[in-house]
Amino acid sequence: MIVITSPNTPEERIGEIVRHIEQGGVQAHVSRGTDRTVIGIIGKADPHLAEHLRSMKDVENVIKISKSYKLASRDFHPDDTIINIKGVQIGGDNLVVMGGPCAVETPEQIDEIARLVKSAGGQVLRGGAFKPRTGPYSFQGIGVEGLKWMKDAGEKYGLLTITEVMAPEFVDICAEYADILQVGTRNMQNFDLLRKLGTVQTPVLLKRGMSATYDEWLNAAEYILAGGNPNVMLCERGIRTFETYTRNTFDLAAIPAIQSLSHLPVIADPSHATGRRELVETMTKASVAAGANGLIIEMHTDPDNSATGDGVQSLFPDQFAKLLKDLEQLAPLCGKKFG
Amino acid sequence: MIVITSPNTPEERIGEIVRHIEQGGVQAHVSRGTDRTVIGIIGKADPHLAEHLRSMKDVENVIKISKSYKLASRDFHPDDTIINIKGVQIGGDNLVVMGGPCAVETPEQIDEIARLVKSAGGQVLRGGAFKPRTGPYSFQGIGVEGLKWMKDAGEKYGLLTITEVMAPEFVDICAEYADILQVGTRNMQNFDLLRKLGTVQTPVLLKRGMSATYDEWLNAAEYILAGGNPNVMLCERGIRTFETYTRNTFDLAAIPAIQSLSHLPVIADPSHATGRRELVETMTKASVAAGANGLIIEMHTDPDNSATGDGVQSLFPDQFAKLLKDLEQLAPLCGKKFG
Amino acid sequence: MIVITSPNTPEERIGEIVRHIEQGGVQAHVSRGTDRTVIGIIGKADPHLAEHLRSMKDVENVIKISKSYKLASRDFHPDDTIINIKGVQIGGDNLVVMGGPCAVETPEQIDEIARLVKSAGGQVLRGGAFKPRTGPYSFQGIGVEGLKWMKDAGEKYGLLTITEVMAPEFVDICAEYADILQVGTRNMQNFDLLRKLGTVQTPVLLKRGMSATYDEWLNAAEYILAGGNPNVMLCERGIRTFETYTRNTFDLAAIPAIQSLSHLPVIADPSHATGRRELVETMTKASVAAGANGLIIEMHTDPDNSATGDGVQSLFPDQFAKLLKDLEQLAPLCGKKFG
Amino acid sequence: MIVITSPNTPEERIGEIVRHIEQGGVQAHVSRGTDRTVIGIIGKADPHLAEHLRSMKDVENVIKISKSYKLASRDFHPDDTIINIKGVQIGGDNLVVMGGPCAVETPEQIDEIARLVKSAGGQVLRGGAFKPRTGPYSFQGIGVEGLKWMKDAGEKYGLLTITEVMAPEFVDICAEYADILQVGTRNMQNFDLLRKLGTVQTPVLLKRGMSATYDEWLNAAEYILAGGNPNVMLCERGIRTFETYTRNTFDLAAIPAIQSLSHLPVIADPSHATGRRELVETMTKASVAAGANGLIIEMHTDPDNSATGDGVQSLFPDQFAKLLKDLEQLAPLCGKKFG
Repeated sequence: MIVITSPNTPEERIGEIVRHIEQGGVQAHVSRGTDRTVIGIIGKADPHLAEHLRSMKDVENVIKISKSYKLASRDFHPDDTIINIKGVQIGGDNLVVMGGPCAVETPEQIDEIARLVKSAGGQVLRGGAFKPRTGPYSFQGIGVEGLKWMKDAGEKYGLLTITEVMAPEFVDICAEYADILQVGTRNMQNFDLLRKLGTVQTPVLLKRGMSATYDEWLNAAEYILAGGNPNVMLCERGIRTFETYTRNTFDLAAIPAIQSLSHLPVIADPSHATGRRELVETMTKASVAAGANGLIIEMHTDPDNSATGDGVQSLFPDQFAKLLKDLEQLAPLCGKKFG
Repeated sequence: MIVITSPNTPEERIGEIVRHIEQGGVQAHVSRGTDRTVIGIIGKADPHLAEHLRSMKDVENVIKISKSYKLASRDFHPDDTIINIKGVQIGGDNLVVMGGPCAVETPEQIDEIARLVKSAGGQVLRGGAFKPRTGPYSFQGIGVEGLKWMKDAGEKYGLLTITEVMAPEFVDICAEYADILQVGTRNMQNFDLLRKLGTVQTPVLLKRGMSATYDEWLNAAEYILAGGNPNVMLCERGIRTFETYTRNTFDLAAIPAIQSLSHLPVIADPSHATGRRELVETMTKASVAAGANGLIIEMHTDPDNSATGDGVQSLFPDQFAKLLKDLEQLAPLCGKKFG
Repeated sequence: MIVITSPNTPEERIGEIVRHIEQGGVQAHVSRGTDRTVIGIIGKADPHLAEHLRSMKDVENVIKISKSYKLASRDFHPDDTIINIKGVQIGGDNLVVMGGPCAVETPEQIDEIARLVKSAGGQVLRGGAFKPRTGPYSFQGIGVEGLKWMKDAGEKYGLLTITEVMAPEFVDICAEYADILQVGTRNMQNFDLLRKLGTVQTPVLLKRGMSATYDEWLNAAEYILAGGNPNVMLCERGIRTFETYTRNTFDLAAIPAIQSLSHLPVIADPSHATGRRELVETMTKASVAAGANGLIIEMHTDPDNSATGDGVQSLFPDQFAKLLKDLEQLAPLCGKKFG
Repeated sequence: MIVITSPNTPEERIGEIVRHIEQGGVQAHVSRGTDRTVIGIIGKADPHLAEHLRSMKDVENVIKISKSYKLASRDFHPDDTIINIKGVQIGGDNLVVMGGPCAVETPEQIDEIARLVKSAGGQVLRGGAFKPRTGPYSFQGIGVEGLKWMKDAGEKYGLLTITEVMAPEFVDICAEYADILQVGTRNMQNFDLLRKLGTVQTPVLLKRGMSATYDEWLNAAEYILAGGNPNVMLCERGIRTFETYTRNTFDLAAIPAIQSLSHLPVIADPSHATGRRELVETMTKASVAAGANGLIIEMHTDPDNSATGDGVQSLFPDQFAKLLKDLEQLAPLCGKKFG
């Protein structure tokens, strides 16, 4: 941590700041510049020290040098985390494909889609039973019943399943039925939910908040890791910007950037990132070229007549199958194994 | 709702879209333009119709004309909502001031600050007992003990109290001790929390999500209102933009804009919106001139030595008292009663 | 300037970085932390040094401590700049109001509006003769003819005039007819235009770029100041964010923030910042409360039938007159003289 | 164009709006909904009609259905534009690579880099002789001398050249020396420059403004096309968002999105989009997978000691050569020819 004083701060005031720092058991190292003085702090400071210093008179700026997250950091854990779920490896040089509908609708729908995901070469079945919706009058999901249908379909076709969990009290029931628990973009900083997910061992896919920085995202992962659950994967799903043609702005550079900062697998979600079916195939390939460890893609047998929305970005089954075929060729050129 | 077709969509396809619309029991009204056809939908459509239509072939765009929220809308409730809490009126031409520390620290601290808030002319004591923090290693709040100290201080000095509630399971305990429950910016779309708050009658201050549109914010309020709790006030606390000099970008135009869209009181939070003590006084006055129904302002007796952070934006007691003095003169010029 | 090395950078590499710094005639001051080393640079470094250092191996970050602008900085010029134009003072505790149409249309239109601006108490007549337009098929302005009409109207009623200049080659002709030259948001970083404006003495109103940081904005002003023209005022006109209800997000906190960083007058433009007539009056008052040194407001006698657009945010003459009346009362409470 | 009235607008007012529309020689088609009335406009309306209508009383919203640009639109020109420059094809299924330093420094530097670009398989030499810089005290480029060195190097090695042109008065001189003229991000809406570029036939690479929407970007291209120069290529170089880890947010979905809206070639700039050398290779591959028609990449022989900055994102020659080698394999999988 570095403290920068205001121009021409008097010596005695610098002395006070130094004493304040050293009271916390760390060392202060003073460099006098032409008009500002810089005080470096050496040692492990109390987490609140930065905030205290920032609010002191004559302190112009406090710059944290060390990262605020530890367990999520590649400094702490240099090797890629590889999460093994029933024999499916997520992370490292494996490419995993998760496919399925936005929402579970009927047992027949999810069974048919599961069959299609499997035959196309996917490994994980996605589907929402509880849906976060902007307004209270929209379809809120089928509930627990949907989880059961999904589990049945997954087992029948040999697929893992992933579903969104929206509140701490649903973590246990969701973990009973699904192999991976998804935290949605609006819940990335629902700290109670994160803490609860730290108490189980079920793998978690943590979506980036729609206006979260990399630092905030990795700190959210840190909550789960610090609670004792090491099985976290991160999901880039687009951020909110001024551009409205696509639903979000797909920040693909986040994939290699996060992989350099962290050892956790990074999954890309081209469906929600773009919100436009006609862009999903291209952006899936771009995600693989950007180094994604996996993909989560919406697919539906009849998006025009989906009861539950988001059809606008769902691939048709034949598009999905063709895309996964293409990935078999593309993946090896990008250092990944697929198919 | 209006459907716009792609250029040169064939007649028979338009017929199919019209049939799809009319199956839902609403009317379709077709206007043929030079290259695009526009289909107006008349009547109360199923909430999913827009999503279905958007995902149909040859549909270029679907535009919703009606607002997605109802109870929060001024169309529905033309008069200002005025919330009466133990004789303090919030809304309409009343100006309410909420002041206090970021976090409750000790009984003495909160007692002393309550005394100062009261003597300056404030009506509500703010203070956090549970703190949402970006990283798991930061101070997370005192907990229930802090709520008790705050309640005692509020009662002693005749102040209402407001505190943040972070999860559905804490709503009841917080409502037992505090007069107003605050939903933080990261929880604006924590739908389980909003639903729970709809089941109580305790007034709620709903902070705007840091990247929430007006529409999303009012829909979040709609969750609480639709649940049966009419006592909602909205709080503008800045949005996330590219500018980093201030902690957030204080969107003051949201105040009159939301007041034209909704009947709910709008409170301004200049402390978190700017994150800089030296801007708080000026931006408090600007908030009043923008028509705010109230203010929530951080104040601390010793921000340099606060154990819990956010001192950087807290006013000193004398600044707070001087500011409220100034508001006595300013408020009447802005159509508000204060002091 | 501070250089932060990557964790565990070897001693010899730190030596190389230090030598690189000291070759430039400045001193390097090394602080060794537990895993990173911090190198402070003392003295006036070459402007490219930061960029060089940032691209060196083992350099994790380079932080500039001093501001990159000088003449625009309050450190350099502690007193408010007051620009005197034919007896009208802009800056300090004076409040200046500039009013008029988006675009000059006819001699009669601009004469009538000038009369209304004057009678309401405004001091400056605004009007565009050259219009920057997103698409090439929109109305591009009347041209030089319009400048003449405006000059005539200004002289007739005793008003200063302000008009937008869009390219270096028009600076001289615009300066011949107008008292203040406006640089539009899209041109804030048109460096050739800024350089040319530095060569004249005509006062310049420099609008903030729609995604410009405070630092970039002040650096753009620095171009004009460094060229030799000290008569620069800054204009906050809203920034681009994800919110689309208002045309831009009006960053009112920029007013006191810029006033603390710089001595230049700050003018607010509530018309373009909101793009909605019904918000202009309230946001004008909020601008004054935020400490603005002046306002630039669109007003039109018949916005419904304006030939040139932007009627949507123009006040009617009676609204404009009423607003200026209100400012007479509000200004003194905000430390300004008006009327 | 569609006009939406406020709820419960009286019949006679709707009649007035209709008359206003029909005065312009177009037809109005009225659909009465339950509370709002929708008026469709059929025929080619005057460009200002939308603005007039938007400012009329009782008009809640005006929605443009047709695009505001024509010549840039794929509706107008369904086939890909392919620009042929001295035998190099840009557009369609060709992949073009432009490489070189941020700034031209010496004849030796640019000669050596040209040799490396050519031997790696690149077709175009990039290099800045005039540099747009945020502050007036930064290096502003070598000037015309640099253009000559670049032209010599390009001719010696059989490379096209591209350089930035910053103002209308430099278009002719730059066009004399360079094969492609680049418009920088800050100049995307420098309309005088765009108009001047419309009067020459030299191909133009138009960088996206750092906060420009797709619509604004294509309208900027329209200025050049409408002036008579059909040789325009677009360059995605990242947009400004809240994330600061990368210099900009690389909006890769803009590549297929713009290609669906327009027939113009789209070039990707991973160097400026990320501002970090370690991300450039991965994001170059992602750009190709996203369908880019070309790449513009910074490369420098000695970025640590570059006199002119931006070394932080420049590839070393061996990285550049290896990357182009990889593209030879990747391009065919993405439907492009390279090498």
